Amino acid sequence: MQRIALVGAGFIGSVHAAALAAHPDVDLVLVHDVDADRAEAVAARHGSRAATRLEEVFDGEHVDAVLIASSTDTHTEHLRRAADAGVAVLCEKPIDGDLARAVDAVEHVEASGVPAMVGFNRRFDRANVELKRVVDAGEVGEVELVQMTNRGPVSPPLEYVAVSGGQLRDQTVHFFDLTRWLTGQDPVEVHVLGSALADPRITRYGDVDTSVAVLRLPTGAVVQIDSVRRTGYGYDERVEVMGSTGLAQAAAQRTGSVTRFGGTEAVSAGLHAGWFERVQPTYAASLAGFVAALEAGTPVPVTLRDGLRAQAIAEAATVSLRSGRTEEIRYP
Amino acid sequence: MQRIALVGAGFIGSVHAAALAAHPDVDLVLVHDVDADRAEAVAARHGSRAATRLEEVFDGEHVDAVLIASSTDTHTEHLRRAADAGVAVLCEKPIDGDLARAVDAVEHVEASGVPAMVGFNRRFDRANVELKRVVDAGEVGEVELVQMTNRGPVSPPLEYVAVSGGQLRDQTVHFFDLTRWLTGQDPVEVHVLGSALADPRITRYGDVDTSVAVLRLPTGAVVQIDSVRRTGYGYDERVEVMGSTGLAQAAAQRTGSVTRFGGTEAVSAGLHAGWFERVQPTYAASLAGFVAALEAGTPVPVTLRDGLRAQAIAEAATVSLRSGRTEEIRYP
Amino acid sequence: MQRIALVGAGFIGSVHAAALAAHPDVDLVLVHDVDADRAEAVAARHGSRAATRLEEVFDGEHVDAVLIASSTDTHTEHLRRAADAGVAVLCEKPIDGDLARAVDAVEHVEASGVPAMVGFNRRFDRANVELKRVVDAGEVGEVELVQMTNRGPVSPPLEYVAVSGGQLRDQTVHFFDLTRWLTGQDPVEVHVLGSALADPRITRYGDVDTSVAVLRLPTGAVVQIDSVRRTGYGYDERVEVMGSTGLAQAAAQRTGSVTRFGGTEAVSAGLHAGWFERVQPTYAASLAGFVAALEAGTPVPVTLRDGLRAQAIAEAATVSLRSGRTEEIRYP
Amino acid sequence: MQRIALVGAGFIGSVHAAALAAHPDVDLVLVHDVDADRAEAVAARHGSRAATRLEEVFDGEHVDAVLIASSTDTHTEHLRRAADAGVAVLCEKPIDGDLARAVDAVEHVEASGVPAMVGFNRRFDRANVELKRVVDAGEVGEVELVQMTNRGPVSPPLEYVAVSGGQLRDQTVHFFDLTRWLTGQDPVEVHVLGSALADPRITRYGDVDTSVAVLRLPTGAVVQIDSVRRTGYGYDERVEVMGSTGLAQAAAQRTGSVTRFGGTEAVSAGLHAGWFERVQPTYAASLAGFVAALEAGTPVPVTLRDGLRAQAIAEAATVSLRSGRTEEIRYP
Repeated sequence: MQRIALVGAGFIGSVHAAALAAHPDVDLVLVHDVDADRAEAVAARHGSRAATRLEEVFDGEHVDAVLIASSTDTHTEHLRRAADAGVAVLCEKPIDGDLARAVDAVEHVEASGVPAMVGFNRRFDRANVELKRVVDAGEVGEVELVQMTNRGPVSPPLEYVAVSGGQLRDQTVHFFDLTRWLTGQDPVEVHVLGSALADPRITRYGDVDTSVAVLRLPTGAVVQIDSVRRTGYGYDERVEVMGSTGLAQAAAQRTGSVTRFGGTEAVSAGLHAGWFERVQPTYAASLAGFVAALEAGTPVPVTLRDGLRAQAIAEAATVSLRSGRTEEIRYP
Repeated sequence: MQRIALVGAGFIGSVHAAALAAHPDVDLVLVHDVDADRAEAVAARHGSRAATRLEEVFDGEHVDAVLIASSTDTHTEHLRRAADAGVAVLCEKPIDGDLARAVDAVEHVEASGVPAMVGFNRRFDRANVELKRVVDAGEVGEVELVQMTNRGPVSPPLEYVAVSGGQLRDQTVHFFDLTRWLTGQDPVEVHVLGSALADPRITRYGDVDTSVAVLRLPTGAVVQIDSVRRTGYGYDERVEVMGSTGLAQAAAQRTGSVTRFGGTEAVSAGLHAGWFERVQPTYAASLAGFVAALEAGTPVPVTLRDGLRAQAIAEAATVSLRSGRTEEIRYP
Repeated sequence: MQRIALVGAGFIGSVHAAALAAHPDVDLVLVHDVDADRAEAVAARHGSRAATRLEEVFDGEHVDAVLIASSTDTHTEHLRRAADAGVAVLCEKPIDGDLARAVDAVEHVEASGVPAMVGFNRRFDRANVELKRVVDAGEVGEVELVQMTNRGPVSPPLEYVAVSGGQLRDQTVHFFDLTRWLTGQDPVEVHVLGSALADPRITRYGDVDTSVAVLRLPTGAVVQIDSVRRTGYGYDERVEVMGSTGLAQAAAQRTGSVTRFGGTEAVSAGLHAGWFERVQPTYAASLAGFVAALEAGTPVPVTLRDGLRAQAIAEAATVSLRSGRTEEIRYP
Repeated sequence: MQRIALVGAGFIGSVHAAALAAHPDVDLVLVHDVDADRAEAVAARHGSRAATRLEEVFDGEHVDAVLIASSTDTHTEHLRRAADAGVAVLCEKPIDGDLARAVDAVEHVEASGVPAMVGFNRRFDRANVELKRVVDAGEVGEVELVQMTNRGPVSPPLEYVAVSGGQLRDQTVHFFDLTRWLTGQDPVEVHVLGSALADPRITRYGDVDTSVAVLRLPTGAVVQIDSVRRTGYGYDERVEVMGSTGLAQAAAQRTGSVTRFGGTEAVSAGLHAGWFERVQPTYAASLAGFVAALEAGTPVPVTLRDGLRAQAIAEAATVSLRSGRTEEIRYP
């Protein structure tokens, strides 16, 4: 049984809280939030207790692990405290908006030796897990072309855009990570071409909402990722991996199985209303992977270093968006 | 909050226990089973308490409702006790293997006025709910032809066949109920042609494992139901409703979304391994419908009378299997 | 090069004419029709010549084979003349509306030894050919359950209904033949339940337009065939064969490959507008099978005897429709 | 009736010959090829006549139009002769391997006023026609992101690579044209990232076989095109257009409709064996569009100018492949 504290009880924190409460080997011992009422409410819902002070979380005695779901600018501080207290940690992405600061924090945590995982939950999506199995088993041969689509239905509010770091760091980064994980390779260069089509006001922040990133892997294989902030048809996520002998394709997932035929058309269920409906099950799966590693004493399935590397790709991609050049990716 | 007791802690009882424990408005107060250890184990798993004596369940004070998941031959006794104690009841199908005994019990319960529901959980399957919505909205016009497929992967053991009442009463009965629910009509006649192909030993019990039942509705619409006990490809359940203006079709559900293309073929995920994997979510949905009715004071969504009527169709179907004739259905 | 004459230049005759003209090894030497203008028009379209008298067709010198596409009541006469003239024959189904007359004619042709084929063109449909290959290769194990759907969009005119022999002899008979061909078995009994829903006036002729026929094969395998005269969604033909180890399914064929996603729905192409659009390619394929057999001196792929056997099933099915009993099938 | 001569009787010429012969309003009057035997053979197959000298084709009296399917380096000469003779022309792409020479020829033809079409036959593919209809009808809103996949199964021989101009000019150019046609916009810039994975020897010619081209349209919309020379799974062509309100998607086309379910998998038909099997029907459709324009006296559906513009995109794309920069596209 792992005694886990949750830091951050906003929307995504409450999703984690539910996953923690439902896991048979987890005891959700504490919930902390800068908003004490919010912590209280989430704690009450799951029969846990609110911690008003962070010291309770990091006292090194009552907590085995902490799940960091607070605002991004607090992640490195919590990571350092966890490391110092010898508490394992599962941290929402990104580690920090600033890559240098993220690197410093990760080096601190690595030095401490505490198990530390970053929450790239799409690695735990059932379709992606199956793709990974297919690729690893050599069922498509050597990877040559990867294509990923990720398109959400709603443009984020401007205030979010202002602090998000931009579409590539915020949205596409998940797929930079999937690229590394699915292919087992670190991309060497990247080019991005993007536009602000749904909400042109985001150009104030140098951001785009419709972009295509193209990456080259060390083997020469090519990866294409399209990212869209606002569709008219729900949340569309698809991944396909073409290898030298075949193609593995994870289709967009429909929300129902009924088709109506009438006249000359057939109408069937469309896609999920939003990203959350699509990826919700991955939170529990990601947590399960973390807990299983803690219990077995094996490495966590996604390291902080993985987080840094995906972030480094996003940095080079962001440079390319402005330079119009294919940019080399430099990993910390 | 409904205080609910569970009677029967075998396989299906334990499924119900999990649904009861997970329902936010249910307090699983007691678990009873003829095997006290089994009751104890299920109760412990969900933080409930085992009741060694049925009197505890039916004392009329500590329990608002009872979920009957014990062996079929005990259903009518429990139904009568629930009625006498003024306790609402959700009863697994069938009400009784013998239709006359079932009718007596239902009349007793109806006289008492306690809310009583029979567990035809396929009515709560998401695909069937969507089909019902489409039909009720007139999106396919007047119903003219219904086709249902239900095929499970594993022949039941002979000792189960011996007491099951036969394929039509045990397996097909769910689809006799769906027929009534989807069309809003009581079939008037039925014909069945069947064979024992997977396990010919079941002919000792007059049973079949591969059958097609055809029914006629009062409007003249025709319903075809094929039932199979043992497939080589998992659990296959499909329903389609053709009306005067269109067709609504609930496809067989695949277990994954990845397709591999290679050479000249494409390989994708098949069907569920068994009926339970396919219909598992319907247990929670069925319970939710029961609880919502109790809380709102509205009629339960599936009545015991619905149970009797589906059973009456199964009786006529069983006669037809032997007579080779189209048989009239007589409802109690 | 086969010199072939066409007898009958109505709608289906003109379809055959186009197939004959396009076949590289066929010389369409003559076209005959009771309506000389019609024969003239079809002949002119394909650079052929109209024969005003049947004697030209059956003079035994200028014609190697005849394709009979005239009205059903003339088939046996033409078959006999072909046999007497030593001319091979490809005859549209049915051989005759009256089974006894059909038997007499077939015996006459068989005695003559001329190659004679009946036009069950669905055996030449690409999907059915693939199904047959799968079944014959044992890829689904022993056949246990066959399901066929055939549903056309337009009720035939009453004057056609009056002479058609009824839905089972006219429409379902193709699938009685497919049953025999796909399984390699002659069904032993049949039951039909049907209604007149689209056009109740057809009950004057004892006919139905919505029916389910269920057959039992010698192995005990069960076959279900639903036939509908008028849908609201085009022409729907599907066949599936379930065996002891798997299922082979030929899906309904869509008329396009574009899907539109918008809001919460996805809209894609529906089915063919009518049976002809769906099965058109089978006319050329059927002719190709006939010509190949003539050139190789091998048996024709569908014999007149096959025609009689499918017709015998339709006879028993028609009796069952009225008797409500499972009827034994007697083959001539 | 249009009297049309065919110049070029190689593989693609013989495909055009069959389309010409089958068109009801076309008289294939002459076939010319530098190899007189080849011309003779193709002419004989379709009841036409071989022209040994080009003068016969361009005498201005016996021919209304010419279809140019000879080797690329002869196209401009034939175009000029057709213009001078007042003969309409349908010319295979590209107009010339050298863009400047192509521009000169086009200006010459335009000055003459003869109807002249370039054979971008994918515009006549049924799926693309349906996509175009959907986009033009505004059913997906304003175009924001276009994604195209075109992947063939077999690497071309090195001697072809040497003269082909490279993957972008030879293969991707069809999709540069589709981009313009589907969106009604001329792309303003392009970036390409590519590798030689299937056959590294092609790097001798500066070529790639696996590439992603990304284009920006004047509205800011983004287009992504992946092109592959050698897959392990046949010919894969897909196009999708995402607009502000929805997505229209033309799926990869399967070669059959039968699915086999067994164990936990479902096996269905894969893709076409090659590009020709997939696009074959577009040759007749393209010709039909040309002939219809000639007969109606309306503009041809694809102009030589369209050919130049697609070629200009390919030029900029080829520059980008080497520069690593997003390149501006300059149209002649």
